[in-house]
Amino acid sequence: MRGKFITFEGPDGAGKTTVMNEVLKFLNKKLSDDIVFSREPGGNNISEQIRNIILNPENKEMDYRTEALLYAASRRQNIVQNILPSLEQGKLVLCDRFLDSSIAYQGGGRGIGEDLVLQMNQFATEGFLPDLTVYFDIPVSVGLERIAHNRRESEIDRLDQETKAFHERVHTAYKQIINNDSGRIRVIDATQPVDKVVADTLKIIQDFYTKYFD
Amino acid sequence: MRGKFITFEGPDGAGKTTVMNEVLKFLNKKLSDDIVFSREPGGNNISEQIRNIILNPENKEMDYRTEALLYAASRRQNIVQNILPSLEQGKLVLCDRFLDSSIAYQGGGRGIGEDLVLQMNQFATEGFLPDLTVYFDIPVSVGLERIAHNRRESEIDRLDQETKAFHERVHTAYKQIINNDSGRIRVIDATQPVDKVVADTLKIIQDFYTKYFD
Repeated sequence: MRGKFITFEGPDGAGKTTVMNEVLKFLNKKLSDDIVFSREPGGNNISEQIRNIILNPENKEMDYRTEALLYAASRRQNIVQNILPSLEQGKLVLCDRFLDSSIAYQGGGRGIGEDLVLQMNQFATEGFLPDLTVYFDIPVSVGLERIAHNRRESEIDRLDQETKAFHERVHTAYKQIINNDSGRIRVIDATQPVDKVVADTLKIIQDFYTKYFD
Repeated sequence: MRGKFITFEGPDGAGKTTVMNEVLKFLNKKLSDDIVFSREPGGNNISEQIRNIILNPENKEMDYRTEALLYAASRRQNIVQNILPSLEQGKLVLCDRFLDSSIAYQGGGRGIGEDLVLQMNQFATEGFLPDLTVYFDIPVSVGLERIAHNRRESEIDRLDQETKAFHERVHTAYKQIINNDSGRIRVIDATQPVDKVVADTLKIIQDFYTKYFD
């Protein structure tokens, strides 16, 4: 039986990484070999090379459409080399960010336009979409406060050198994606304490898993 | 006055690089600061980083669509960072390969389909095309013989590990591009002696240059 593909999405500062680490710890104990974790941009040797170009703070001259094409290239390689083969083996594949991030960040945040970015990405995905997407919802101001509070100097990359207006556009684009595709996307209130966010996420995944795998 | 953009295209083994070097030597003497030369993939720091991923022989797992997206990303950056600013300064910009190569190599050679590759590349080019394209025409068998004869072991990259059928498909796709856009593309018989090919190329460029610049 074909596996299932679950993605995690949300604006910066939603605590997505922290929550995902906790969720993975739990799921790894329960499912062990049947679970695969990936991230965007990245996930394999070629995609990580592309990731290095995208996130290198010296690449200040990078055009927004170049950036969007590189994300799509990294995504394509991850789909073909990692995600689809794992799904064919019946595994549960979790991915930190996927197509929705490109639509929100490059389409909305960068101002290229959501439709144009989605259309270009069809070349990369050939219509492939997650079976379930968990969206960590947080107001822009709260997300940005958390980033400012947690950030170490060494972690600052090019993408962080952006304005609040950028993050507002990302947020608006995400809301639109959720409105358009509410059947796929489950929204979690990420302003709750981390333990509660983890618990909510696990419940959603377990319900989904039970429905499809048991 | 806006400059002009001339690209050089052709299958492998057509002697394109040799001829271009001679043409550049001549044009540099005549035009000096008014001429800019570029190449694909590459042309600036970011595009060269992308080039390194595309041509790295260790990246054997690269999917054909990933490759096409990387070429488009490299192209986009070269257009925005190098080609358009030079044209705005009234310069004559020459480029070794451009969009036609993606259509012929990824669309035709790799079998993705010319229309799909062209459509995806619209995201990168936004309709930008060369003012003139010089196509070095050579039968596939002659081109492949030249490659085999001239190739040093150290120069072999991933793209050369291809079959004759691949090069036939590239050739067919190029012929179709020329049929569709004969006003832009000038065809040169590249089986002639190098001196004659250089002279033919210079004549085409000088006629074009006289028409538009004098």
